[in-house]
Amino acid sequence: MDGRNLIGYKHSAMAKEILAAFSPIKRKVIDGEFHIATTEEIDEAMNLATSAFTTYRQTSGKDKAKFLNTIADEILALGDELIERAMEESGLPKGRITGERGRTMGQLRLFAKTLEEGSWVDAIIDQADRDRKPFPKSDIRRMLVPLGPVVVFTASNFPLAFSTAGGDTASALAAGNPVIVKAHESHLGTNALVALAIQRAAEKTGMPDGVFSSLNGTGIDLGQTLAKHPQAKAIAFTGSLRAGKAIFDTANQRVEPIPVFAEMGSINPVLLLEKALATRGEKIAQQYASSITLGVGQFCTNPGLLIGKQSDDLDLFIKNLAKNIEQTTPATMLNEGVCNNFENGQKRALDIPGVKLEGKAATEKEPIQGQASVASVSGEVFLKNKTLQEEVFGPFTLVVRCAADKEMQAVINSLNGQLTATVMGEKEELAENLNLIQDLQNKVGRILFNGVPTGVEVCAAMQHGGPFPATTDSRTTSVGVGAIKRFVRPLAFQDWEQELLPEALQDGNPLNIWRMLDGTWGQK
Amino acid sequence: MDGRNLIGYKHSAMAKEILAAFSPIKRKVIDGEFHIATTEEIDEAMNLATSAFTTYRQTSGKDKAKFLNTIADEILALGDELIERAMEESGLPKGRITGERGRTMGQLRLFAKTLEEGSWVDAIIDQADRDRKPFPKSDIRRMLVPLGPVVVFTASNFPLAFSTAGGDTASALAAGNPVIVKAHESHLGTNALVALAIQRAAEKTGMPDGVFSSLNGTGIDLGQTLAKHPQAKAIAFTGSLRAGKAIFDTANQRVEPIPVFAEMGSINPVLLLEKALATRGEKIAQQYASSITLGVGQFCTNPGLLIGKQSDDLDLFIKNLAKNIEQTTPATMLNEGVCNNFENGQKRALDIPGVKLEGKAATEKEPIQGQASVASVSGEVFLKNKTLQEEVFGPFTLVVRCAADKEMQAVINSLNGQLTATVMGEKEELAENLNLIQDLQNKVGRILFNGVPTGVEVCAAMQHGGPFPATTDSRTTSVGVGAIKRFVRPLAFQDWEQELLPEALQDGNPLNIWRMLDGTWGQK
Repeated sequence: MDGRNLIGYKHSAMAKEILAAFSPIKRKVIDGEFHIATTEEIDEAMNLATSAFTTYRQTSGKDKAKFLNTIADEILALGDELIERAMEESGLPKGRITGERGRTMGQLRLFAKTLEEGSWVDAIIDQADRDRKPFPKSDIRRMLVPLGPVVVFTASNFPLAFSTAGGDTASALAAGNPVIVKAHESHLGTNALVALAIQRAAEKTGMPDGVFSSLNGTGIDLGQTLAKHPQAKAIAFTGSLRAGKAIFDTANQRVEPIPVFAEMGSINPVLLLEKALATRGEKIAQQYASSITLGVGQFCTNPGLLIGKQSDDLDLFIKNLAKNIEQTTPATMLNEGVCNNFENGQKRALDIPGVKLEGKAATEKEPIQGQASVASVSGEVFLKNKTLQEEVFGPFTLVVRCAADKEMQAVINSLNGQLTATVMGEKEELAENLNLIQDLQNKVGRILFNGVPTGVEVCAAMQHGGPFPATTDSRTTSVGVGAIKRFVRPLAFQDWEQELLPEALQDGNPLNIWRMLDGTWGQK
Repeated sequence: MDGRNLIGYKHSAMAKEILAAFSPIKRKVIDGEFHIATTEEIDEAMNLATSAFTTYRQTSGKDKAKFLNTIADEILALGDELIERAMEESGLPKGRITGERGRTMGQLRLFAKTLEEGSWVDAIIDQADRDRKPFPKSDIRRMLVPLGPVVVFTASNFPLAFSTAGGDTASALAAGNPVIVKAHESHLGTNALVALAIQRAAEKTGMPDGVFSSLNGTGIDLGQTLAKHPQAKAIAFTGSLRAGKAIFDTANQRVEPIPVFAEMGSINPVLLLEKALATRGEKIAQQYASSITLGVGQFCTNPGLLIGKQSDDLDLFIKNLAKNIEQTTPATMLNEGVCNNFENGQKRALDIPGVKLEGKAATEKEPIQGQASVASVSGEVFLKNKTLQEEVFGPFTLVVRCAADKEMQAVINSLNGQLTATVMGEKEELAENLNLIQDLQNKVGRILFNGVPTGVEVCAAMQHGGPFPATTDSRTTSVGVGAIKRFVRPLAFQDWEQELLPEALQDGNPLNIWRMLDGTWGQK
């Protein structure tokens, strides 16, 4: 296990201070000495990235696609060593880690396909009209170009798919930006392995030295240094509201503010409509017990808030949900910090007068394990306690019993911004609850009908983002093809020479992409 | 002249404090008493906007288009009263104001056309695959939806086209957001007239009460109150770096940070290549003297920095430019503040040892007039004095004499973010200076070949924005069709019922828009 920092094409270990890797499942320190990056090493990585950018920003879509596909190949080539290390470090089971590796490779290949097709640059051409009166019209052509070096803060809960070569890295690289990864302290070895795979792919496909670097350090120190670094041009982050907001604030207070795309989690409200509870409440309780406890509840899309109108059916639903939750088995969480925060979060909620524990996993938990629970509260108490909207990251959900339609509306209007909301209802109930549902749409990035919010499809139509505090920029997504749009800006060329235009904007459309020519979409 | 605040469909004047209108061309106070908005009135406008949003966000593209077209009609119906008032308040000549009115109406009609066509919502549909293994694939459909009430800070230098019914208002309304305008103190009467036109259009087309309000107040007080208002969901601003940055900081420090799209000006560097100077230096000098003094230099795209390599041709060019500038006549600026800042800005630059005044308009100036000038400096001194990159808003330009290619490269790499850059060169010189030109592209939102940056075409391919400090978000434009994209966010519907989907996402494509269906662009 090579625990040095990866700076472009070389390994570097200037500092004696090291971080150790800890396995939550073995509950002990495991193999690997991870050298903390020094200021000098950070500067070196950033300088190299800036210098790589002058080449990489002009690298063709086809060549970038090769690079991304080769990263996927190299990740697969790491074989069982990667799977085992990720399991050891995250406590997540083999099926999940293997699936996540597939998802990670799938994302890389999806962005590669997007680059090969090429239309993602949003090329728009307005041709000249030199005879226009009173002023002639210039030839103006616009396309998206990359921003510059992107700092990626990796997430603990997806050691592969939202980490070193995860969605943020893949989309930033696809857009044409060098990436500097801050390794997550929770899976340093997994990070080192994947970083090596990226480095190998970069070398094999002839990418410039510095197109990728990976640095070790403690969250706050390294994070703040990277966020302040004058050569960083954008930041991607997935994690807690506290950490994400701190990075957002730092980035905005720079001499040159830079965009921060922070996905900071959510409580993902679920609206339980009456007829659905009456006709299939028991099934919904089962479905939701599974969703709440999936991956030990460690998903940004975990349904942490269920909202229903007081009725016998709701009482029965809560009872069934509690019964299902009681039957779940505690499981290892990502790390001690996550586990402690989960317990503190549950306690914070349950300490509020009026919040009632309805059920808890019956099996006693071992250290660093999460024991699922469900609580309930009246709409009145919920409306008075804004802290009940704070995410409890882990297998916990709160059911809000609303006294009447009006209170339900008030509860929905009181909600913070969310990644998702779900409506569980019979078809005919949707029209009856139109106002509720439309207000809910205004709070979220994705709205579902009769499903569970966990399990985020990676596709073109996906929106994984939402109004603050779910993210720092509701106009962006961190999952799906649209994620690439975070790291680009439009550049217009006016009366520019044909031969010097990027191919996407040249006459005759040599890349055969979809583009807008004088107001008409097409492949001309 | 009705100087009350416009709050939705009513006029309101709760405060006794008033602002007066001052004409820079008459150099005296003119007709109109403009009541400062009280906290209560501000709250009322914001509450009404929030309530209007619940209806307006669901208003069809066709209905919004009617509203925008009717605003254009109502502006025209204001007739000469508007033209005369705008001339009196801005000091700008009749031809310019009439042209600007045409541009303002043109922008409104362009957004109306965009809405009628409908494809701007970026609809993407990924249909379900219920048989997919290991997990079934849900039906996911995504489109752009509006953010909520938008606060528009109007610009002094475009009393019509970037003001009350200007590009920001037009694009925010087109996107489906109510707008609250902060009237500019420099043209309060013009604002009141145009606000009335918008109100009439809203009533005629049945828009909800509160879809538009216009408030008077002093810049800092009203501006800060609006930026802090919890019901504001986005801000558009055109003006100085100092004011724009203050609003940006306030908006980011809110409990719920909101996006600020501030266009804060630029010095718009021009690269003068050798052969162009040798073959047509005299003509370029004429062309640039015109561009620098157009509208008394009061454009964000005014070319404030010319960069060339030391040579006899450059000396001759500077001499010719100075001669042309000397022959210009001082003209009235927008207001006393702008005029004082212009004089202080020139002085700040000329006080730096090594900065040489090369020429100044020969005719003496009257009060509140701008007297054009041109100065020069060595590349060495320019590189040492970052203050020389501060915009001098008005008819002033600085020529940088670079000692060698290397210094020219250093000067370009030292530049802040810019709205535009221009390359003046012979065709064959472009390839010879590729590195310079590519580094320049990395600094700007629009790059021109053999033209002048003033005169910003309103079209789909236009990019009017650039890296900080030109704007607070280089990923957006404030001119052209793309401006609408600032005020929307994607919303995804998962397994949603057909009848309740927005028309843009329904099966069979009832709006016949361009959209992506299972990865393929088309009108299906």
